[in-house]
Amino acid sequence: MSATIPAGLVGVTGYTGMELARILAGHPSLELVCATSRAEAGKRLDDIYPFLQGTNMGDIKITAPDVAELARQCKVVFLAVPHKTAMEIADALLAAGVKVVDLSADFRLRSKAVYEEWYDVEHTRADLLQEAVYGLPEFYRDQIKTARLIANPGCYPTSAILGLTPALADGLVEPENIVIDAKSGTSGAGRKANVGTAFCEVADSFRAYSLPRHRHAPEIEQELSMAAGQPMTVSFSTHLLPIDRGILSTMYTMLKPGVDEAAIRASYDKFYGHEPWVRVLPAGRLPETRWVRGTMFCDIGLVPDPRTGRLIILSAIDNLCRGASGQAVANANLMLGLEPDAGLKLAPMMP
Amino acid sequence: MSATIPAGLVGVTGYTGMELARILAGHPSLELVCATSRAEAGKRLDDIYPFLQGTNMGDIKITAPDVAELARQCKVVFLAVPHKTAMEIADALLAAGVKVVDLSADFRLRSKAVYEEWYDVEHTRADLLQEAVYGLPEFYRDQIKTARLIANPGCYPTSAILGLTPALADGLVEPENIVIDAKSGTSGAGRKANVGTAFCEVADSFRAYSLPRHRHAPEIEQELSMAAGQPMTVSFSTHLLPIDRGILSTMYTMLKPGVDEAAIRASYDKFYGHEPWVRVLPAGRLPETRWVRGTMFCDIGLVPDPRTGRLIILSAIDNLCRGASGQAVANANLMLGLEPDAGLKLAPMMP
Amino acid sequence: MSATIPAGLVGVTGYTGMELARILAGHPSLELVCATSRAEAGKRLDDIYPFLQGTNMGDIKITAPDVAELARQCKVVFLAVPHKTAMEIADALLAAGVKVVDLSADFRLRSKAVYEEWYDVEHTRADLLQEAVYGLPEFYRDQIKTARLIANPGCYPTSAILGLTPALADGLVEPENIVIDAKSGTSGAGRKANVGTAFCEVADSFRAYSLPRHRHAPEIEQELSMAAGQPMTVSFSTHLLPIDRGILSTMYTMLKPGVDEAAIRASYDKFYGHEPWVRVLPAGRLPETRWVRGTMFCDIGLVPDPRTGRLIILSAIDNLCRGASGQAVANANLMLGLEPDAGLKLAPMMP
Amino acid sequence: MSATIPAGLVGVTGYTGMELARILAGHPSLELVCATSRAEAGKRLDDIYPFLQGTNMGDIKITAPDVAELARQCKVVFLAVPHKTAMEIADALLAAGVKVVDLSADFRLRSKAVYEEWYDVEHTRADLLQEAVYGLPEFYRDQIKTARLIANPGCYPTSAILGLTPALADGLVEPENIVIDAKSGTSGAGRKANVGTAFCEVADSFRAYSLPRHRHAPEIEQELSMAAGQPMTVSFSTHLLPIDRGILSTMYTMLKPGVDEAAIRASYDKFYGHEPWVRVLPAGRLPETRWVRGTMFCDIGLVPDPRTGRLIILSAIDNLCRGASGQAVANANLMLGLEPDAGLKLAPMMP
Repeated sequence: MSATIPAGLVGVTGYTGMELARILAGHPSLELVCATSRAEAGKRLDDIYPFLQGTNMGDIKITAPDVAELARQCKVVFLAVPHKTAMEIADALLAAGVKVVDLSADFRLRSKAVYEEWYDVEHTRADLLQEAVYGLPEFYRDQIKTARLIANPGCYPTSAILGLTPALADGLVEPENIVIDAKSGTSGAGRKANVGTAFCEVADSFRAYSLPRHRHAPEIEQELSMAAGQPMTVSFSTHLLPIDRGILSTMYTMLKPGVDEAAIRASYDKFYGHEPWVRVLPAGRLPETRWVRGTMFCDIGLVPDPRTGRLIILSAIDNLCRGASGQAVANANLMLGLEPDAGLKLAPMMP
Repeated sequence: MSATIPAGLVGVTGYTGMELARILAGHPSLELVCATSRAEAGKRLDDIYPFLQGTNMGDIKITAPDVAELARQCKVVFLAVPHKTAMEIADALLAAGVKVVDLSADFRLRSKAVYEEWYDVEHTRADLLQEAVYGLPEFYRDQIKTARLIANPGCYPTSAILGLTPALADGLVEPENIVIDAKSGTSGAGRKANVGTAFCEVADSFRAYSLPRHRHAPEIEQELSMAAGQPMTVSFSTHLLPIDRGILSTMYTMLKPGVDEAAIRASYDKFYGHEPWVRVLPAGRLPETRWVRGTMFCDIGLVPDPRTGRLIILSAIDNLCRGASGQAVANANLMLGLEPDAGLKLAPMMP
Repeated sequence: MSATIPAGLVGVTGYTGMELARILAGHPSLELVCATSRAEAGKRLDDIYPFLQGTNMGDIKITAPDVAELARQCKVVFLAVPHKTAMEIADALLAAGVKVVDLSADFRLRSKAVYEEWYDVEHTRADLLQEAVYGLPEFYRDQIKTARLIANPGCYPTSAILGLTPALADGLVEPENIVIDAKSGTSGAGRKANVGTAFCEVADSFRAYSLPRHRHAPEIEQELSMAAGQPMTVSFSTHLLPIDRGILSTMYTMLKPGVDEAAIRASYDKFYGHEPWVRVLPAGRLPETRWVRGTMFCDIGLVPDPRTGRLIILSAIDNLCRGASGQAVANANLMLGLEPDAGLKLAPMMP
Repeated sequence: MSATIPAGLVGVTGYTGMELARILAGHPSLELVCATSRAEAGKRLDDIYPFLQGTNMGDIKITAPDVAELARQCKVVFLAVPHKTAMEIADALLAAGVKVVDLSADFRLRSKAVYEEWYDVEHTRADLLQEAVYGLPEFYRDQIKTARLIANPGCYPTSAILGLTPALADGLVEPENIVIDAKSGTSGAGRKANVGTAFCEVADSFRAYSLPRHRHAPEIEQELSMAAGQPMTVSFSTHLLPIDRGILSTMYTMLKPGVDEAAIRASYDKFYGHEPWVRVLPAGRLPETRWVRGTMFCDIGLVPDPRTGRLIILSAIDNLCRGASGQAVANANLMLGLEPDAGLKLAPMMP
């Protein structure tokens, strides 16, 4: 095996940090050498994550974040910190010559104004917005390979954009009046002390949240607009599922006249037939979140409905793996010239 | 207390039968005197439902269904049997002078042709279709009081119709292009030996099913068409939640020009302000299925979205109580001249 | 109906407060007139508990705790506050002539020394320890009727004491070497912002906690010692179940020579045959927590094991209803001369 | 990479078959070439397991079991069939020169009489009982390496034997009066159409089952007796957890006089300090099933209780991976001279 490539992780205490640790534990080339957290500095990784005891990551010492030290030790750094925090660190790491995969929202929107409207803070590194590459491998593979800075896509946007892009790009459906009804497992809410995500508040229940303005809407609209070749507005709603992981998006579009199922399947096959991580399910099969649990797969179901003239598109991903840390590793693989699926040959955990 | 009224239950072994037993155990006037099941005849009720041991229903003897015997013993009979079976029994019971609440789909659709298209069987008692009253108390209270035969509404339709009717009846939203994205707990799938609803196939997962043609669609369209005063077609999709009970429907409509939130709230208040079981939540609050667990409540959330010109309506019910057996008891109360909420003053089980 | 009796609730924001509200919503005689919480004073009850909107309790105004005001308004007060806080308030309320049901641990242990050893705080109202009646209706019914102050039993102790008492009191099993392996739903951990009880930390997992010293051990030993007529020490372990409500205790005892199943069943029948809330299950049937969900039932399974010479006793309760608020209402009913099961004729929520 | 080794799987349709597929999908040397099922013959593997679409196993054709064909194609065969069926196939495969890992119970008990007492069928291949090696790598590694036939341990026994062996072998605890209170996720009940394991019968509930005689008891007693050097009888109880995967066993022993925590930890360290898959947790830490989810780890917690003179031992495994298919692969690795952890470097899925 070739020598390993040293990687850093800023912000180790959340679920995306946990998931990155799980994936790197099985990665043949990337080695986590630096894990930072202000709150937990001084502890070993398996002090805060006992499930890592006995793996090759258990004895990593958590340090306070220190850009100079990260730059000295790492060739690539993953940022798993809140938005606003990320933009400052990313800038400093890039200046020190480190490749950066930012899992926050800070570099996903190309427009400073749109970012500031939806995130309610000033964007102080707007110069980097144009340089950052949106890290969806299916659509930006070549740019990712040469990028310094990756804006790792949001979990909901990954699901929605992969599901809708072929239909919009090939003009199969109307770009107006699209409804994206999305449902996510509770890990999407992060790991924090919060009554609202306590077991007894979530289990055996179901609810919508953040209606009608979830911050992932502009990210979805930005990418779909490019696919459709015209500005798009979508209705995007989010719900909280009593499951750990998984997003299922049910997307309602109006078919353009004359488009039949064969044309739809041809389009999706053209886009994804050669893609290892997007599985277009055969007719009559609908995605289930558990089929993608712990993996990079995005499963897509296609349901034309002649009665209503609609095409209903369903897509399922694992919000922590494909929707966050797995995709981040895929982007790092591409940036570093590794096998694209190094560490990511993951089969779903069933049941 | 007045003397009790004898009631019968045909088809005791499913979740709607269980729920009816739970409700009747606390009912001041209705007494279950006859419970039938072909498969379990000869046993006591607490043999098959050990949780009824020690209640006033535990020692009821299950018998094989026998119309003459039911008619001799009961003033009202609840039918919790599959469609097609119900139409035959209902006819015979009515002929014997018994009031009937049918929980199956057999009398919900006014059109024989529509029934036969969606249920794939002949309707042999079409003469009763016009007589049967659709048992949604908020809209058919007076007809229910004098009815012999109640078509107890489906669970999804209860949720969708209560949520959409004011907006359509008062012309606040366009009747076209409505999307109803509905999610139901697993008890909605019934109580049977089936790999697809096994714990390990449902827990920690989420999926859609029956797309794009669920049998509750024509029932929803029938009632919404009457509310809107014009024929309506809706896009109706169903999903399986890893919870026991509860339906949440997220409904997407296009606001008509000039309709503001005040008008919307005035309409819903006019329809439901005096109704004990429909709770229109204040602005900023969204329904949760657990808030209605075990009760007759239908909670409605109203979310105007100026960005997309939509009104998003959310409604939550308990599919077994409000969506089936509780509503059946409400209908029986009305038919028998009892207090409308007798046995139904149920507060939600929280958590 | 007779005039209602005014009741108060100190500490409304936890799960026991929620459950008390659910039960009182259906109580024919007790009316909640005063609900206090330091943190939420000024709000309506349905502001913090939206599920109470539309019930008779929704518009109750939450106030800051004020003993004089409670005494002025209420005939009975339920204390749902942490231990140590309870002892002070209880004393003041009693002095003002109010009957008190304390749901905390402050008056459960008859020995000041034992309390202080296990709870690590001084007991400043030790004079009341002898007066307080342990509120387990099956064993202390007569004392409860005349008591001023009830120590409402802990959830685990309710389950363990009801399960073991007949076998110990009738000398069927050895008092030594008893193991109580208990498992509780997550609502037992209370309602607070805490990573450890977050959905993603509890769902799809199982763990033990507080080993080997859980504070309910001395309470169990106190009552079992009285049943056995000799000082007892038990091994008591607690586990966290990924369910909302319910405790199942599996209890391992050694049968005394010559004791057969008939003797065991005769003993349990003598103790509980006439008790409405204890259900001794027939041979071959084992309790399930859902069979008692939302109710006052304690279900007991008896399993003699000739191979090991043991009697295994299983008992299931709902930790919030029988293990806390329901039992508190039962005690209030007895203290106030009401029907013992007023407001408590609850059938289990199934499924 | 070296050439792959062809493997077969008899009985592909259960959860152990699913788990074996997941593990082999990431195995560097073993390749599934033959998957059999009477019921599903003729289909592709991803027809019955859509989650395998797009992996290297999706297009494997399921065939009817045929020993000659298995022997022609495979070097090793895994049997995931019911007991009694396994003994016939194993014999035929061995005769054809194939190495066999039997996941059923057929070769776990060394005594024909004990097998027949607990499994109620005749053992027709008793000659193989002495040859079969009990496939617990920590204790039988050398024998496994040269074995033709592995009796893959039961899930509960794996957990109990790993937890108790050091304490018994080193004489730290009394061999009498041991209680093993075990709890398992629902996948342990297998994948079949069954009302008792339906979602609504398991979720939000908890119960014991098979008391007091579970078939894993004699297997546990056989291995513990060898560790203790004397015949042992244990009290072994099983419970059903509303989780997919995971077993937690809480084991109660009596400490011998003078044994302190240092001696206990020294013993467990001696047994497991060098073992990659057994993690003895530090003092104060208790195992959680999710910490081992999807992995080979057995996590052990040690809790001395001076108050009762007990040592409480807790052990957690994943019943499908360590308790079945993962351990089967570990045994195959050893038999075939592969790296012991080939395909098994699995980090837990968290959350």
